[in-house]
Amino acid sequence: MDEKALSSMVDAIVKQIGASPRDITLSEARSLSEKIRQKAESMGVKAVVAISNRAARPILVECMDDAYIASYDVAVQKAFTVVSLKMSTSDLKPLAQPGGSLYGIQFTNEGHIVIFGGGEPLRNSAGAIIGGLGVSGGSEEQDTALAAYGKEIFEKGGF
Amino acid sequence: MDEKALSSMVDAIVKQIGASPRDITLSEARSLSEKIRQKAESMGVKAVVAISNRAARPILVECMDDAYIASYDVAVQKAFTVVSLKMSTSDLKPLAQPGGSLYGIQFTNEGHIVIFGGGEPLRNSAGAIIGGLGVSGGSEEQDTALAAYGKEIFEKGGF
Amino acid sequence: MDEKALSSMVDAIVKQIGASPRDITLSEARSLSEKIRQKAESMGVKAVVAISNRAARPILVECMDDAYIASYDVAVQKAFTVVSLKMSTSDLKPLAQPGGSLYGIQFTNEGHIVIFGGGEPLRNSAGAIIGGLGVSGGSEEQDTALAAYGKEIFEKGGF
Amino acid sequence: MDEKALSSMVDAIVKQIGASPRDITLSEARSLSEKIRQKAESMGVKAVVAISNRAARPILVECMDDAYIASYDVAVQKAFTVVSLKMSTSDLKPLAQPGGSLYGIQFTNEGHIVIFGGGEPLRNSAGAIIGGLGVSGGSEEQDTALAAYGKEIFEKGGF
Repeated sequence: MDEKALSSMVDAIVKQIGASPRDITLSEARSLSEKIRQKAESMGVKAVVAISNRAARPILVECMDDAYIASYDVAVQKAFTVVSLKMSTSDLKPLAQPGGSLYGIQFTNEGHIVIFGGGEPLRNSAGAIIGGLGVSGGSEEQDTALAAYGKEIFEKGGF
Repeated sequence: MDEKALSSMVDAIVKQIGASPRDITLSEARSLSEKIRQKAESMGVKAVVAISNRAARPILVECMDDAYIASYDVAVQKAFTVVSLKMSTSDLKPLAQPGGSLYGIQFTNEGHIVIFGGGEPLRNSAGAIIGGLGVSGGSEEQDTALAAYGKEIFEKGGF
Repeated sequence: MDEKALSSMVDAIVKQIGASPRDITLSEARSLSEKIRQKAESMGVKAVVAISNRAARPILVECMDDAYIASYDVAVQKAFTVVSLKMSTSDLKPLAQPGGSLYGIQFTNEGHIVIFGGGEPLRNSAGAIIGGLGVSGGSEEQDTALAAYGKEIFEKGGF
Repeated sequence: MDEKALSSMVDAIVKQIGASPRDITLSEARSLSEKIRQKAESMGVKAVVAISNRAARPILVECMDDAYIASYDVAVQKAFTVVSLKMSTSDLKPLAQPGGSLYGIQFTNEGHIVIFGGGEPLRNSAGAIIGGLGVSGGSEEQDTALAAYGKEIFEKGGF
């Protein structure tokens, strides 16, 4: 059995016996962030990449040289938002506009909820959220693309 | 005289003599929360239920397993909002939209004001607020329905 | 195989395969808190009992009627402290005195670290921390005794 | 001229002409953190390593798997403290004890000042501070040793 098949089997067993899925590891987070930074560099974006565990706590934050100072907080809080609400910040965005069903969510949780693109939950092969990804530093479109890229390569594995 | 009739009489006397109504008790809060959780479970919602006293301070918080992390703060602050403003969060919602008469209230009180559905004040038989209920974990519609359900069974009593 | 033996076996498997141990459940937390409140009542203490999960986030808070207002925060933060530092608040106490190796820890983590008795980590049968307990409302001696009592009955199980 | 000699010459020119020294880069911070994590692993410590720039803002935070939750804040704030006060947290420690000349500093700066070992400023070859290092996760002795190790290898360079 190769590593990926083994990993899928373990994910399924964990789900079956009611244990919590394991958290994303620092090693995985570092590999993922490296790929996102390379992509950002190719796009001319100076990004902050933040990765949280399944408890929505950050385990890795990396600021590319000369990134926006404000992006630190934005990236870390995106990584919190996606785990704490189990959705991407892009999906949250329309709900949190004035008149939307969750308008006001952005003022709760001590201001830790970010409501624009650039955050994606990270799932294991059994579909359970085991981490969260937040990217900030470019336009919303760029951050959204970078987070989607990160999510895609994370879920395709090697992780 | 049965318990409910006695309780109503005491509420009326307290109002008449100008005393403070008694607070909701932990025992009442636990019973109420249990019923709300059962209802939530039947709806497939993993809710956080928070109940505050007449001072708008939480006396009970219960997080159903695997509820949203962000719902903790939202439920607790809904229970604060309804007592501190003496209205449901659903009633507050239109007032707090851009252009509304209370637009901006959500930025006061250190971010503790929640402006979407799922919070209801809890009143005794004389109509005095003796507690507050906050529910978070489903869609706004679900949270609103669960809080309304909680308010209804609380006011019908047995409490 | 009885429930306790099964639970121990699952704990061991989870450890072996590197999954995270499961979190304490709300149902377990409610049973534990009820026993602690009964004990507190027998001691004449009006306690706040807070129980956090393995991520140090509160999942249950119960305030006995007429408990100290300040105890809410103290109990919740004790439940945070014991998981976030993996030790009881009694063990932390001497380290955090002026001149001690960790003096100053009480000013970190946004003031969420409590350095006097009444907090105990809760472990599963494999020794992994799956929750945290914070009790506040009596003298330090009483809170310490109540937390130790809670830890003992939790680890003896039925849980 | 090798890279290190070149770097020293640049540092000296920058000092002479009154320019700001350059900041530590993310690339340098990642290399440094990797060496500290390897050392921590050899000591059996699960560390959080935080590295700030000359503006005392974090540019890298890495949490080894299963590190203390509380260590995140402690490491980040150590990295802030050493740049904002231009001294190691070990040197600050005696000054911040009751009766000490800076007793009370730990209550300023919104609680971001850490007063026990594990933080070291990082200097370029001209002696200017270009970053800060914070380590948390072991005993104070271990954190102090890990930060001193990091400072030493940083200043010996290749950086």
